[in-house]
Amino acid sequence: MKEFELIKRFFAEPGVTRKDVEMGIGDDAAIIDVPDNSHLIVTTDTLVQGVHFFADMSPRALGHKAVAVNLSDIAAMGGDPTWISLSVTLPTADEQWVKEFSAGIFEICEYYNVQVVGGDTTQGPLTVTVSAKGLVPKGKALMRGGAQPGDWIYVTGTLGDAGVAIDAIKNDKQLPLLHEKFIIDRFEFPTPRVAIAQSLREVANSAIDISDGLISDLGHVLEASNCGAIVNVDQLPLSEALTESLDEHLHYDFALTSGDDYELLFTVPEDKRGALDVTMAHYGVQLTCIGQIQGQTGKLELRKDNEPFEFEGRGFQHFSKDS
Amino acid sequence: MKEFELIKRFFAEPGVTRKDVEMGIGDDAAIIDVPDNSHLIVTTDTLVQGVHFFADMSPRALGHKAVAVNLSDIAAMGGDPTWISLSVTLPTADEQWVKEFSAGIFEICEYYNVQVVGGDTTQGPLTVTVSAKGLVPKGKALMRGGAQPGDWIYVTGTLGDAGVAIDAIKNDKQLPLLHEKFIIDRFEFPTPRVAIAQSLREVANSAIDISDGLISDLGHVLEASNCGAIVNVDQLPLSEALTESLDEHLHYDFALTSGDDYELLFTVPEDKRGALDVTMAHYGVQLTCIGQIQGQTGKLELRKDNEPFEFEGRGFQHFSKDS
Repeated sequence: MKEFELIKRFFAEPGVTRKDVEMGIGDDAAIIDVPDNSHLIVTTDTLVQGVHFFADMSPRALGHKAVAVNLSDIAAMGGDPTWISLSVTLPTADEQWVKEFSAGIFEICEYYNVQVVGGDTTQGPLTVTVSAKGLVPKGKALMRGGAQPGDWIYVTGTLGDAGVAIDAIKNDKQLPLLHEKFIIDRFEFPTPRVAIAQSLREVANSAIDISDGLISDLGHVLEASNCGAIVNVDQLPLSEALTESLDEHLHYDFALTSGDDYELLFTVPEDKRGALDVTMAHYGVQLTCIGQIQGQTGKLELRKDNEPFEFEGRGFQHFSKDS
Repeated sequence: MKEFELIKRFFAEPGVTRKDVEMGIGDDAAIIDVPDNSHLIVTTDTLVQGVHFFADMSPRALGHKAVAVNLSDIAAMGGDPTWISLSVTLPTADEQWVKEFSAGIFEICEYYNVQVVGGDTTQGPLTVTVSAKGLVPKGKALMRGGAQPGDWIYVTGTLGDAGVAIDAIKNDKQLPLLHEKFIIDRFEFPTPRVAIAQSLREVANSAIDISDGLISDLGHVLEASNCGAIVNVDQLPLSEALTESLDEHLHYDFALTSGDDYELLFTVPEDKRGALDVTMAHYGVQLTCIGQIQGQTGKLELRKDNEPFEFEGRGFQHFSKDS
């Protein structure tokens, strides 16, 4: 276990040092000063090899992704991420692996000013658990259950790209050379929508991040909010990389059901749409209105060219469903 | 993965419901109200099958222990545990297993008024990660680095019992029938010293929990505090179960080097010893003064009958060192 002691020391390097951390790594636990006007946000996600990532994923991507999926949850609450704890279980203490893995961790933490305040390294099958914390002004958190009939449904970025990557890797498909890096990066280096969370909490009624797929995650919002929705599939934001990588009949399928994009889905009432446009203009994040919340509880209506859109949803296989 | 959805719903039962939890399980993240006068304490520990627990450990014990080791870290900071997040990776979705495991989780959480605010269940090799949070009045946290020369060194409970259990299980040794349950429970159902943490923060200069063994954990205190120490081995608190289960020449060995007892080690200045005795009297927790902090940095002197005690420390094999 001597090697694991070395790894522990490796992670003890804090990277970002925040003023609100009274004691970081190095004691039984971390001590943190939470501002009086804020609520604490807490989330945890585990990535298991073979379930959430392929065995040949680079350690740097794994480090990035383990943090990104947690920061995405914080952003989906309208919060600002602040601290993470990290638990890594490793089969062997491979110094090069650990170096690249922690580079992935520290890069994203530095970008978002997040401090690693605790960690645990153990020997065993490769598993990474990150517990992320964040802050949101009291009463401003965005819940899944806040959507109101009439709210407009927005998503950030483009949908389905990570699904194309999973499909290509699993089924050994060749992606168009021009788009390969973009598509794989969308799966391995997702961008948590942290930057816009601060503005979003002023205008949105509800929010969720798209980790399981649009239909599934919008379903969580509808269930928690006791609402229904209309989604116009011809308004779904598709990347050129997706449209040029998939047969046309699969475009909507992937955009509607593939997960792992970690884009945000949120709902905005009519009277806040102006404010949304103004505050979002300078972020450079693509925003698309894809539909509207309706009163009919639980009913999700898909439309294309204002006609009902029949959808079978069999094109995309979820990574975790059959691995 | 349908079964895993069921498990998620199983854990969604909150058990304890605390008023400071604005949103528990059921959204992207939990929202928590941290009192203005408190610092937040954060810790994470992972238990891996074959590394931290034996494959035949009962799921109830595993649930208990995964929470207990984290609450012990909170107590070692002088804090009160409040919320946990739970990540469980399971090979199969065995409903009976999950039922017993979560009974273990919820029993200890109920006892200490701790709410499960988040969780993640995934398929893979058996691993449990708990991230526990707690509160401590601002400025009152007990650090490893606070020991002062002259401080008296105390430990709670008895030392080495969990080590006897590990030794017996690993080497298939028969324990005395009278003591078997006590010894095994000390390993599988450790008691985090949460109850005394509140009083301890008023009298102690430093604290740590004994997870790696007395010598190792006292070493962390001495290193962080730039101090040395004298420990009188004939004052080490030994249970009757330990002394009747081990050959005499192994008693001190186990008490000094075996881990997993999750007792607290703390240091108290001379002028606070009276207050310690008064406030601790009604807790019913055994407290033993085993030595004193000295000025010589890093030097740990073991004594028996006031003579130097020679110690080779080869009797106890750590669970994790050769598994």
